[in-house]
Amino acid sequence: MKKQMYQVIENFMLEKMNDAAHDKFHIYRVLNSALEIARHTKNVDAEILTAACLLHDIGRDAQAKDPTLCHAQVGAEMAYQFLSQQGWQANRALHVRDCISSHRFRGDNAPETIEAKILFDADKLDVTGTVGIARTLIYCGQAHESLYNRDEDGKLITHKVGKETTSFVEEYNHKLKRIHKKLYTKQAKKIAKQRQKAAKKFYNALLEEI
Amino acid sequence: MKKQMYQVIENFMLEKMNDAAHDKFHIYRVLNSALEIARHTKNVDAEILTAACLLHDIGRDAQAKDPTLCHAQVGAEMAYQFLSQQGWQANRALHVRDCISSHRFRGDNAPETIEAKILFDADKLDVTGTVGIARTLIYCGQAHESLYNRDEDGKLITHKVGKETTSFVEEYNHKLKRIHKKLYTKQAKKIAKQRQKAAKKFYNALLEEI
Repeated sequence: MKKQMYQVIENFMLEKMNDAAHDKFHIYRVLNSALEIARHTKNVDAEILTAACLLHDIGRDAQAKDPTLCHAQVGAEMAYQFLSQQGWQANRALHVRDCISSHRFRGDNAPETIEAKILFDADKLDVTGTVGIARTLIYCGQAHESLYNRDEDGKLITHKVGKETTSFVEEYNHKLKRIHKKLYTKQAKKIAKQRQKAAKKFYNALLEEI
Repeated sequence: MKKQMYQVIENFMLEKMNDAAHDKFHIYRVLNSALEIARHTKNVDAEILTAACLLHDIGRDAQAKDPTLCHAQVGAEMAYQFLSQQGWQANRALHVRDCISSHRFRGDNAPETIEAKILFDADKLDVTGTVGIARTLIYCGQAHESLYNRDEDGKLITHKVGKETTSFVEEYNHKLKRIHKKLYTKQAKKIAKQRQKAAKKFYNALLEEI
């Protein structure tokens, strides 16, 4: 991708990500991981991938304001409109749209193209490892969830009881520990395996302390 | 301490700690650590120590409502009044008051008695290790601070620039990494050294990922 086009897309992303610094850094980490995976994968369109990474979370604000919306769907449409306005060919703007609409962990539509799979994996890599631990704990603070809960007998509750997780310990066992199984690309699986080790060490040390 | 007195003090604590489950578990962890330190320390009054641990943060609510107040001073006074009402001898209720008033990291008055030193250390142990990391990250979420920030050149900001820390990375280097140096008792230093290792591993893995 030419530097000028990168900057145009980056600025559009920064404008849409008004939810403080944290999310902006998530975008750059995802882009870095995606390009790292791409280096080990054949026939990847780097321009499509870069645009999809930069724009994959621009629908978050809309979802925060109206929780019935899905940020992947909204963001995909916004990205398509924006890239079309920037003079991108329809089939390429549609390709980016498809990458973004299928990047969600809980989403129904699975990624199909290699660029969509790499975006999906790079986004999920940011939930594995110590960054995943840190982001989940920060989210617990925002959502007033606790580090852990105990049942009436004082026993640690490790798995969620109802539909929603209510503590970091439950979320670790529900999502963080298992997310590497959802990955598509070989390179992402390799990175996840390594990061998982650091996360597991943290979790085990935490259990020992509490 | 007799079981009945423990329950009376515990119930008073639970009544005052209305800031959800997280704080309640902090109290129990501090009590556990304190009793563990006491097992390796001579001439400790377990009743004074237990009461001081259970009641050391009951002034948090008052401080949250009026930030000009110090929760250690307010809590110390509340504990003294409560224990006096429960028929404690004045000198013993005053001893608990002194433990609580000197437990704060940033406070001016240092702990003097062995029970005060153990409470101080047990409270600080909850900031070392993985529990300390987790609690700091949850606090970042509550206070809308970020995991890390970068300067204009994209370089990671590891140390606070102004008076206040604004990210987890800054707080780790300002407080978490150094807190073991403030400890008084031998046993707490030993526990801290071990926990520090797990915390350092997490921090280093995090730096590698970002």
